[in-house]
Parts: sequence; structure tokens; C-alpha cells
Amino acid sequence: MSENVNKALEYASSNKKKFLDEMAELIAIPSISTDSASIPDVQRAAEWLEAKLKALNFDNVQIMPTDGLPVVYGEHLKAGKDAPTMLVYGHYDVQPADPLELWDSEPFTAKIDGDMLFARGSSDMKGQVIASLAAVESILAVGESPINIKFMLEGEEETGSPTLGEFIETNKDLFAADFALNPDAGMLSASQPTITYALRGLAYFQVEVSGPSHDLHSGLYGGAVRNPANELAKLIAGMHDENNRVTLPGFYEDVRDLDQNERDALAKLPQDDQFYLDQTGVSALWGEEGFSSNERATGRPTLDVNGIISGYIGEGSKTVLPASAMAKISCRLVANQDPKKVLAQMQAYFKSNAHPSLKWEVKLLNEAVASISELDSSEVMAMSQALQHIWGTEVLFKREGGTIPVVGYMQDKLGIESILTGFGLPEDRIHSPNERLNLNVWEKGIQALIHFIFNLG
Amino acid sequence: MSENVNKALEYASSNKKKFLDEMAELIAIPSISTDSASIPDVQRAAEWLEAKLKALNFDNVQIMPTDGLPVVYGEHLKAGKDAPTMLVYGHYDVQPADPLELWDSEPFTAKIDGDMLFARGSSDMKGQVIASLAAVESILAVGESPINIKFMLEGEEETGSPTLGEFIETNKDLFAADFALNPDAGMLSASQPTITYALRGLAYFQVEVSGPSHDLHSGLYGGAVRNPANELAKLIAGMHDENNRVTLPGFYEDVRDLDQNERDALAKLPQDDQFYLDQTGVSALWGEEGFSSNERATGRPTLDVNGIISGYIGEGSKTVLPASAMAKISCRLVANQDPKKVLAQMQAYFKSNAHPSLKWEVKLLNEAVASISELDSSEVMAMSQALQHIWGTEVLFKREGGTIPVVGYMQDKLGIESILTGFGLPEDRIHSPNERLNLNVWEKGIQALIHFIFNLG
Repeated sequence: MSENVNKALEYASSNKKKFLDEMAELIAIPSISTDSASIPDVQRAAEWLEAKLKALNFDNVQIMPTDGLPVVYGEHLKAGKDAPTMLVYGHYDVQPADPLELWDSEPFTAKIDGDMLFARGSSDMKGQVIASLAAVESILAVGESPINIKFMLEGEEETGSPTLGEFIETNKDLFAADFALNPDAGMLSASQPTITYALRGLAYFQVEVSGPSHDLHSGLYGGAVRNPANELAKLIAGMHDENNRVTLPGFYEDVRDLDQNERDALAKLPQDDQFYLDQTGVSALWGEEGFSSNERATGRPTLDVNGIISGYIGEGSKTVLPASAMAKISCRLVANQDPKKVLAQMQAYFKSNAHPSLKWEVKLLNEAVASISELDSSEVMAMSQALQHIWGTEVLFKREGGTIPVVGYMQDKLGIESILTGFGLPEDRIHSPNERLNLNVWEKGIQALIHFIFNLG
Repeated sequence: MSENVNKALEYASSNKKKFLDEMAELIAIPSISTDSASIPDVQRAAEWLEAKLKALNFDNVQIMPTDGLPVVYGEHLKAGKDAPTMLVYGHYDVQPADPLELWDSEPFTAKIDGDMLFARGSSDMKGQVIASLAAVESILAVGESPINIKFMLEGEEETGSPTLGEFIETNKDLFAADFALNPDAGMLSASQPTITYALRGLAYFQVEVSGPSHDLHSGLYGGAVRNPANELAKLIAGMHDENNRVTLPGFYEDVRDLDQNERDALAKLPQDDQFYLDQTGVSALWGEEGFSSNERATGRPTLDVNGIISGYIGEGSKTVLPASAMAKISCRLVANQDPKKVLAQMQAYFKSNAHPSLKWEVKLLNEAVASISELDSSEVMAMSQALQHIWGTEVLFKREGGTIPVVGYMQDKLGIESILTGFGLPEDRIHSPNERLNLNVWEKGIQALIHFIFNLG
């Protein structure tokens, strides 16, 4: 086995120029999914990937139509049914290059300058897709893959993957796997390999409180009538207790607590209080008693007003007593919390706390379950060992406070967790002019992926 | 004296046709202050009144230019310096007649049908101005006035009297008087003479709370940062205690309490709980413990959110943690409360309750002091007796929860209270098509004003 690893690494090393050329070819296709004029280019990029998977002797390679932009699929299932199956996720679409005048080189021409490759999509994420393909090619070129591999490459990530969830549901048998590899999550720095092992979920509500049948004159009726704006403020204020914990009934019941291992891992991250102060511009932090800022922002559930409106908000003064008040309120959720249960908790809160003379409505506008990979799962350990072997330094395990839709789809529709890593860096200027990829990190990434696959075998 | 009263009443009675003709003349001038094309008509109406005051042998009669539309002034100061001086306030401008197609007669042609006179401005308030002039004419035609009389008739009430305050300040010596008569306040019903003896004041604030330097992603930072929208909700919620009393420090210190006489008088009004339920469409009333709805809405100070906005309020969900939140909050004030002191109280509240890491701003956008006439003052008693004598029924004393700017100006600039009454009715359709005046009530009004003036002498 270790002989095969070395051969594969050797192949990767001697074919670096080939992989770079392939990356340049893919980059040269401006597959901008947000621009309908570029749809032929999105199709061309899909065809390029289809050809590449075929060249790797993948089976069942196809460009699959969706309700949006196509998905490229291919499978290599020769490791036998006892070997694990990995589903590699990637996206081949890119952001627009605007504003063009701020680029120092042609955005759709890969330009190498020292260790850097400049181009739109180089880091996000054509470079990552090429690295994944290169690792698989290197293994297959010198022997057999110890695991079964499927690729699912989408073309509409930059538009929010609007049709992907349903598409995965429809094709869940085809995409069945033991875990997903998602190399779209990046590293904390060029010297710091990183695995993102948890994402928060979401329950996003729109709530409305109404009382009077019409806006009233505050001079004539102020003082005699319950004001829906004041009342909504009171309801919102009551949603946190004095320890800044959320008061929706039962909110913490299902919450998976951070264990000491996780807390130790999070404490090693550079996202300390100063990081949060710097990023947000606030002069003091806040949050649930008993947790660090990073824990609060990534590992604990929350409740935030995202928007609120009522009454007169123009210039000057209008003495209206508004008939209703609306707020958008969202909860970030952690593992084991069910957005539908949180909806029921929000409704129970309103039922207990809104005065019975008020009408109220709580709508769930958006939902996503949280995802988490066990730190001691075989896939996480395999990736962790691979990264540590190549970088020679301990891997950091981080959580993300946000939600990545495709990770949720993998979880919901396929019942699998995603290993979130990648070789993009915070300084890569993704979505901005002069996007770049650090080729040193990228090359190490290919090597790490080779190790990872053999670690799983 | 009583002989003179009877003579004056007789004169009024036998000159009813003359007064009606004068009203028709004034109504025929479409003095729409909100329409700049009508400014020549506004000027013509002023000239008509100037001529009328001259015909009554008033002195110092003049059309006074203001920064807006002119004020007509005249004085009759022959009662001697020991006699009281009354400043009669009125406005000679009217609302537009639109929508014209909904009128059953020509809006600017007085049309009499039974006891009703239909025309724009008939009730609001050319009919009231004519009644005041008719009462004075009736007294002067048969003898001397027992009191000194000034008329101040403005032409921009329907645009909110934007320049009147400063104009009164500039001319405060000319307008000096012992009290004002404002017949623009109307009656509760045709059979129920009414004096409005108190208006509430106003302190209207715009408050803003801000924290982060920019809108944040609620996934990345939610839970670690104090959310200004949640925080503003908390601040607003804290502005009332469990008895629905306002918690701004010192808010009730200067409040003039309702005495038992006043409470008894208010309890006789038809504005009971059912009235407030019907008018507002709420299913339950609310307010400061220990007071009736009418007391809460007219005789007690309040705090209401008039508007609030923060973050994303469009369709769907946007997971923003807003950088700031703004609310418009107004307090209705009662006698002896100073809006500037309430500003200081609001600032003190924010200082004590807003977290020191938040930036906040409290701006006073609008202010008015409350006004009140003592129920046992000689002017109120004189008016009450006059109304009761003519209608043969007890006068009701009501408060208004709102603010009438000119009453505030009289108070601020001239240091005098206004006797608020009038002969308009709730069903007069002021500001609407088919505005009308009940001529029975109007004629009684002239008689009551004659009695009033003699009662003061």
C-alpha cells in the first residue's frame, strides 16, 4: 500500500505541469452562472469535466440536466462493495469578473507569478476541483483506488444552488455514498491545515403582531390601546434571559453540547476575542454566559433580529400608533436541533407571551439542519492524518457559524456527512479582482488528498 | 346689562339672513391654502374679512403679511383697561373640495336645505368665524362691548400653520390678551354643548442604537455580538413597567394629576370603553393602571412607538445582523410637563439602560407643551353658563389627547389659555365632500357667544 502511495505521489509530482495546464483550460472557460449570457460557457465547462472523467476511465459519466444548470457525474466503483464510497462535491461555475478594470491580468487566463496563479475561479473552486481530479488520476495511473469514488460537480453554486436539493433527492440512489468530500471550505492559513467539522443550521422566522384595525392617531388613542410595535419589542426583549440564553420553551433540550475535546480544539483557533472585535467593529463582545466568542458564534444556538419594521419610518415626525409590527428573527441551530421543533417553540413562546387580544403570526421562511462530523470518525481521522503528514503540523478543527446548503442536502437527502476542507486561503480574494491560488498549498493539497484516500483504504 | 343682552340677541335674530348672506359671500371665495393656484383667493378672503372688521368699526384693521399666508387683524378696545381682552382666533382658509364628483351641490356655493347649509368651509370654519363676527356685530350694533376684543384670523391652518408660531412671537404685543377664544373645537352632538379644556403636549423622539461598524452575517457573528435591533427592542420594552406606567426617570414628577372634579366630568362623556373599542378595532383596551380609557387617552401622559426600522425588511430571508436600529417614539404630555425635561429623561434612560458598548442618539424632533384651562376660571365659567343657558343642558367638559399648534403658540408666545369650543358637529363631514353646517346649532352658537361676552363684562 505505502508503495502505491509513493508511486502516486511521484506521479503527481512529475505531472504538475499537466495538471496546471488542465486548470488553465478549465479557467479559460468563463462559466459564470449568474450571467445568463454565459450559459453556453457553463455547458462547455461541464463538457470539459465530462471528458476529463471519461479520460480517467470513470463509468456512467454524464452531464445531467437539472431544473437549473447541469451537474456532471461520474463514478469509479472498482474497490469492491466492502470498501467505502466517497462522493466528491465540487462546483465548476464562477463569480463574474467585474469590475474588470481592477484586474492586473486577464481574469480568464491563468497567469502564474512565482507561487501564485491568478485567475477567476482559481481558488473558488476550479483549482480545488483540479486538485481532487489530480489526486484520483495519480492513484489510478499507478494502480487501483482503495475506495470507491463518485464525483458530483454542480454549475450553480454561485447562485445559491437553487435546484440542487431537489436534484439530489431525485437522484439519491445514484449519489449514495458513505461520506462526502467537500474541498470548498479552505484553510486558516498557508501553514495551517484545517478541517471544518460543523456548520450551524437555521430557522428563519417572519413574525407579525397586530392589534388595531387600522393605524391610529397617537394623540387620540395613545395610552388607551396596546401598541403592536411596543408589544413586539417586549416579545423580542423576552426572547433572551439575563444570561443571554434564548428563552423559547425547550430551545436547549436537543442541543448537542460542546464536549471538552471540541472546546480544546476551538480554543486553539486564531478566532479569539480580538478577532471578533476586529471583524465586527464593536467595542465589547456579547453572548451566552459560559462560552467563548468562537463557541458562541459557531457551536451554540442563537436568536437574532434580522429586520424589524412598523409604523412611520420616513423623515420627521408622524404621530401614528401603528396597527401592526413585523420582524424577521432567525435562530442559528446546532447539531440535533430540528428547525420544525424550533418553529413550534417560537409559536409556544408567542402563545404564552403575546397578549390574547393581539393577533400574531409566526412563519418559518427558511430552515436548515446543523451538520457535524464526529472528530473521531474514520474519515475525519483519515483526513486529519493526511493533512498533518504533509504539512507537518497539527490540524485545526473549526466550526462555521453559517450554513452551506449543499452540506445540508447531503445530510438530508443522502444521510451522509461532509468532510469540509480545501486549499483555498483567506487572502485568495475569492469573488474579487485578482483572485489567486497559492500553488504551493495546492500541490500539498493534491498530496494530502492522495494520502487521505489511501488512509481510507 | 341684561337689557343689552336681549337687544343684542334680538339684533342677531332679525339679522340672521344678513349673516347667512355674509357667510355665503365668504364661502364663495375658494381660499384653499394647500393649492398655490388659489393664493389670490386666499388674499381675497383676507380682504373680505378686513372689510368686515372695518365695517364693525374695529381699529387698526390690517392684512398682515407673514412668511406664509396673511393674517387679518383688527381690535376693538373701548371697554377700558380694567375690562378683560379676548383674542378671537379663526382661520379663513379651507381644504380642497376634491373629489368634486362626490359633491351633491357646488362646493363653493352655500346651498341651504332645511336646517343644513352645504359648502366647503361651512363648518370648518368659515361658519364659526361668521358666528363670532355676528355675535360681536350684534353687541356693537345695540350698545358697547363689555370687553375688549381682538380678532386674529389666519390663512394657513389647513397646511398646519407652519409660520404662525413665529409670527405670533414677532407680534406678541399686538396680540396681547387675557385669553383666547378658539371656536374651532366643536361639540359632541347638536344637543350637547361642549368645552374642550385641555390638550396634551408632545415630545417626539427619534432614537438610534448602533453597534457593529457594518451589517454582519448572522451566521458568522450571530451569538457573539450584541444585536442593535434586539437591544433597541429591550430598551423599548423597558420603557413601561408592569402597571403600564412610563419608566423614564422622573417622568411623572411634574404631571398635573386629574382632580376628582375633572374625573367626574370626564366620566360623563360618551367616550366610554365601548367608544374606544369601536374606534380602534382592538378586542381589549390597555393602559396605565388606575385610570379609565378616556383619562388614559386625554389626561395622562403616554409613550408610544410611532415607527421602528432595522435590518432587512424585504421579501424572504436575509441573514443580516444589522449594524443599527432606529425608532420614532413619542410621549403625549399633560399639564406642567416640559418636553425639554422629558428629552433629558429619555437621555437619562438610555444612559442608564443602553449597554455602554453601544452608540446611541436621542433626538427631539417635535415638541409642544400641554394646555389646560382651569375649570373654575372666569372665562370657562362664563362660557359654560352661556352654553348651558342657550341649550338648557349641562355643558360637558372634555379633553383632547392630541395637540393643536395654535393653542400651544398662544400659550408659549402670549402666555394665555384658549377657550376651545365651537358649533361644528362630528357629522359635519369636514375635509370631505358635502361638508355641512347645522344652522340651528350655528344660530344658537351666535346667541351663546353674545351671552358669553356679556358674562365676562
